[in-house]
Amino acid sequence: MITEATEKHREKACALLMADAEKILRLIEVQIENLTMPQCPLYEEVLDTQMYGLSREIDFAVRLGLVEESKGKEILDNLEKQLNILHEAAQHSL
Amino acid sequence: MITEATEKHREKACALLMADAEKILRLIEVQIENLTMPQCPLYEEVLDTQMYGLSREIDFAVRLGLVEESKGKEILDNLEKQLNILHEAAQHSL
Repeated sequence: MITEATEKHREKACALLMADAEKILRLIEVQIENLTMPQCPLYEEVLDTQMYGLSREIDFAVRLGLVEESKGKEILDNLEKQLNILHEAAQHSL
Repeated sequence: MITEATEKHREKACALLMADAEKILRLIEVQIENLTMPQCPLYEEVLDTQMYGLSREIDFAVRLGLVEESKGKEILDNLEKQLNILHEAAQHSL
């Protein structure tokens, strides 16, 4: 039984997760612009920590039944794809 | 307006967070029993990562409106208190 309240929570959970993924992307974008060195270990650590945090949020939302597992995976996959595009663009501009 | 479905999500969110806190406590307990060295950097890293993951889950639940900020803080504070008790017991048994 999906009530209106549940539907709202689902939508909010999804919106929050996508906003958090977007935040990571912006953070990495700023780091690349300012450091222009994606090989920096500190950069990798920041990215790893952020990705881990997001994956924990997604896992939590899935366990709560607010987000489908496939949707959660899609959010992470999309973010990784966009990060790869950023990395490649940064490497070509070196 | 709090519907029954929202109430269920609130309860489930809280139960999941407390179970995750409990899991960290058990993990650290096992580590202390087997390593008997809380000064080990790897141990600290595991604990930091786990605490960070839990705090991200709690923050997410608070932003979703499923858990009160004070309740989230209480879960983290309780866990830290219990970890301190474990640490002290481990140090005295050395």
